[in-house]
Amino acid sequence: MTATPAAGSPYGALTDQGAATNIAWHEATVDRAARAQQRGHRSAILWFTGLSGSGKSTLANALNAELFQRGLATYVLDGDNIRHGLCSDLGFTDADRVENIRRIGEVSKLFLDAGVIVLTAFVSPFRADRDRARALVEAGDFFEIHCAADLGVCEGRDPKGLYAKARAGVIKDFTGISSPYEVPEAPELRVDTGALSLEESVAAVVALLEARGVLQRLEA
Amino acid sequence: MTATPAAGSPYGALTDQGAATNIAWHEATVDRAARAQQRGHRSAILWFTGLSGSGKSTLANALNAELFQRGLATYVLDGDNIRHGLCSDLGFTDADRVENIRRIGEVSKLFLDAGVIVLTAFVSPFRADRDRARALVEAGDFFEIHCAADLGVCEGRDPKGLYAKARAGVIKDFTGISSPYEVPEAPELRVDTGALSLEESVAAVVALLEARGVLQRLEA
Repeated sequence: MTATPAAGSPYGALTDQGAATNIAWHEATVDRAARAQQRGHRSAILWFTGLSGSGKSTLANALNAELFQRGLATYVLDGDNIRHGLCSDLGFTDADRVENIRRIGEVSKLFLDAGVIVLTAFVSPFRADRDRARALVEAGDFFEIHCAADLGVCEGRDPKGLYAKARAGVIKDFTGISSPYEVPEAPELRVDTGALSLEESVAAVVALLEARGVLQRLEA
Repeated sequence: MTATPAAGSPYGALTDQGAATNIAWHEATVDRAARAQQRGHRSAILWFTGLSGSGKSTLANALNAELFQRGLATYVLDGDNIRHGLCSDLGFTDADRVENIRRIGEVSKLFLDAGVIVLTAFVSPFRADRDRARALVEAGDFFEIHCAADLGVCEGRDPKGLYAKARAGVIKDFTGISSPYEVPEAPELRVDTGALSLEESVAAVVALLEARGVLQRLEA
């Protein structure tokens, strides 16, 4: 008996096995569209960018919790789970920073394909690196969200004491102090995380996702 | 108003934002356990290993379709979505092969954490590399599945013509011909993909996952 997978089926190699018979999953296409239909929402990449201390990780995690409570499949990529894992071989040279963002873009693409709304929270100061991540996926799948707290606000918070070390010259090439932050020119959303409350910031992103059809608008 | 996140909450940084108020997601912990509870199943890494042509990708994709039809969150990592993306910078030197498997292990860990059953389909011929991937996660989360078709069977299939090129010396260091395949000594499952039908192979993995509590046994 010969399996006859649909055109473009990932099971084109089924006939390798010889004994394939025509049971349902031979014809199944488990792609992003099928996952979206099963899960009830489409996937997306929410790429948070901004200075250290601008609240990227805080906003991404709060939004993650909000979306989780709505039953959506979500995941946050941030320094905690990337720098000590996938990118533990990388340092902070220019080349390593580029490679770090490249890998995060590629992993985000995998999560997108898997049907997950993935939230990335990295300074990602260079436009070219962010644009490269954007270019990996279709238009409409990538949402660049600029956490736009002023340098003064971020340095005033300095939750990890990094600005103090950068000012003292202990940390070299620190974004905002001794290395540039290239402000996004046309992000899908700019959130003034220096002025807005966390609730207001979450609401702003939720509104964006509703407007773009990633989230259904909830009845009040 | 001061936010008081639970101990171990990922929202410990909430107070950065100052204006945090005590709405529900401030206390939410969106971890692997919460995702498992919401989704109704726990996550796992199913690490398929075996010679080229042994049916790893075929089995992983068929199992993926089977699990998808049961409503589970799953994803397949294989050469198609890894070699041209995350690992497009890597070649086939010894060091690059080690790094390739290292990254796949790290990405698998991220999917595991995200609540997804991830199926990896790579030759992964070296025991040390597989053991390193296993060591990234807790015991019981990693299932090594040896697709154990004989070399003769695999070479007879040669779906991509790779064995012919290896025999001709066009491809160097080809696993099984000019580079060793280190047979898993204690895999969670060994499937004779040379003798079993695809249905039988899928059933064998499903039985393993039922026995280990990843899948609920379905009523007949």
